[in-house]
Amino acid sequence: MGLRPKLRVAKVGGAILEEVQARDSFIKAFAKLPTPKLLVHGGGRTASELAQKLGIPVKMHEGRRITDKATLELAVMVYAGKVNKNLVAQLQALNCQALGLTGADLGLILAEKRPAQPIDFGWVGDIKAVNASLLAQLIQLGIVPVFAALSHDGKGNMLNTNADTIAASLAAALATHYEVELFFGFEKKGVLKNLEDSEHYLPTIRQSELESLRAQGIVNSGMLPKLNNAFMALEEGVQKVWIAAASEVAEAEPKGTKLLLG
Amino acid sequence: MGLRPKLRVAKVGGAILEEVQARDSFIKAFAKLPTPKLLVHGGGRTASELAQKLGIPVKMHEGRRITDKATLELAVMVYAGKVNKNLVAQLQALNCQALGLTGADLGLILAEKRPAQPIDFGWVGDIKAVNASLLAQLIQLGIVPVFAALSHDGKGNMLNTNADTIAASLAAALATHYEVELFFGFEKKGVLKNLEDSEHYLPTIRQSELESLRAQGIVNSGMLPKLNNAFMALEEGVQKVWIAAASEVAEAEPKGTKLLLG
Repeated sequence: MGLRPKLRVAKVGGAILEEVQARDSFIKAFAKLPTPKLLVHGGGRTASELAQKLGIPVKMHEGRRITDKATLELAVMVYAGKVNKNLVAQLQALNCQALGLTGADLGLILAEKRPAQPIDFGWVGDIKAVNASLLAQLIQLGIVPVFAALSHDGKGNMLNTNADTIAASLAAALATHYEVELFFGFEKKGVLKNLEDSEHYLPTIRQSELESLRAQGIVNSGMLPKLNNAFMALEEGVQKVWIAAASEVAEAEPKGTKLLLG
Repeated sequence: MGLRPKLRVAKVGGAILEEVQARDSFIKAFAKLPTPKLLVHGGGRTASELAQKLGIPVKMHEGRRITDKATLELAVMVYAGKVNKNLVAQLQALNCQALGLTGADLGLILAEKRPAQPIDFGWVGDIKAVNASLLAQLIQLGIVPVFAALSHDGKGNMLNTNADTIAASLAAALATHYEVELFFGFEKKGVLKNLEDSEHYLPTIRQSELESLRAQGIVNSGMLPKLNNAFMALEEGVQKVWIAAASEVAEAEPKGTKLLLG
C-alpha cells in the first residue's frame, strides 16, 4: 500500500475563521501545505448573527440546533457563499488552486434527511455516500477541494451536515486512493487535560481510553462527537488523525493530540 | 474547425429564478440539453430584498448600482450560496452533473476592480482572463459548470460582475475548444419590437442595425449591454447567439432573436 500518495484532509473550525488574524495565518499555513490536500470548514457564529439580524429564531432541542427551512437557507448563504468563497479567493491569491464545494456539487456527498422521529432536527443530513473516485480525479488535476459543511439529498434539497463528520467521511472515503492524514484544527492546542488550563493537552488518546476520559469529564459532550468521528476515520483506513491548533496544519507531525486505535 | 464538439453556454436571468414555476421548468429544460453545456445565472431581486431586511442601503449612480463592501458580501451569499447551490442540488436531482462555481474557484475568471475614477462603482470587476483550458478539462470529465456572476481580483477579493458579460466572456474563451452557441434566456420571447407588445420580437438583429434600433428606441439602455456582449462573443468566434425565452434553452434552434454579424 506504500504506493498510494499522501493526502492531508484538514478541517478548520468556525471560531478560527471568525477572527481575522487567526484566519489569515491559518490560510497562509494551509496554502504552504504541499498538495494533494483538501479543506473542510465550519461556519461559526456568522449564521447565528445573521439569523438574529433577520429575526429568524434559533430553535434548539437539548442544546442541539434544529435546522428549519429559514435556518438552512442562511447556512447555505453563509457557509457555501460568504465563508467558502472568501476562503477560495484568499487561497487563490496565495497560488493555492482552491475549488469551493458543497456535497451537492458533482453529487460528491449524498446524504439522507435525518428521520423526524424521535426528534425532528429539520434539514440535517446523515451521510450515505461519498463519490471518492471523482474527488480523487479532481485532486489528481492539482485541484484543492474546499468543502463547506453541506450535503444534499439527491432530490433537490441541500442539507446541513456537521463539518467534523464531513471531514472524517471524506478522509475515510479517500483512504482507498491515498494515505490519508486527517487534521482537526481549532482554537485550542489539543484535547485539554483540564478546560481551565489551555497549555496542557493530551499528547495521545487511544480509543480504549475514551470511555474512562469521558467518565472523568476530560472529554465533554462538545469533544465527544469529534473524537468519535476521528476513531471512525482510523477504523476505516485513515493513517493518522490529530486534534490540534489550526496553525499546526502544515507541520509534518503537528503538535497536538494524536488519536490511536487500540 | 468542424472537429470541435458543440457546446452550449446558457445564461438565465434572475427574474426566471425568482418565480418557482418558471425556474423549475427552466431547470428541467436545461437538464435535458445534451452535454457539453454550461450555465451562468444572475441573482435577481433576492439580494436587494435581503439588503432591505438587513437595513443595508442600496446606492445608485445614474441608475447603476454601486457595490459597497456590505452589498458585495450579500451578493456573494445570495448568488454563490443560495441561488447557485439550490440550482446545483436541483440539477443533480435530474442527473445533471452540475458543479457550482464562481470566477474565484480554480481562478477561472480573473478580473480587476473597476477604477474609482470617474465614478467609484465599488467592488465591481472587469474581466481580464478566463482559464479556458482548465474549464475545458472539467467539461471533458462530463462536468456541467454552473457559474454565479462573481469574479475575483487574484488578491483575495471577490468582485461583482455582470452575468451577461460573464456568459459572453466564457463563451468567447471556450470558442477555441468548442463550437460555442450562446443562449441568453429571460422572461420575454426575444428582443421586442415594442415593449408594450410581448408577442412580437425581432427574429434577427444584425450588428449593422444596432445603431438604428437604438435611435428608434427599440433597443433601450437595459438591452444594449446584452447586445454588445452578444456581438463581442460573435466577433470572438462564438458560432451562434440567441436572446430568447428561457424555456427555449434545449431547442436546437431556439425561437427568439438571433444575432448576426455584418
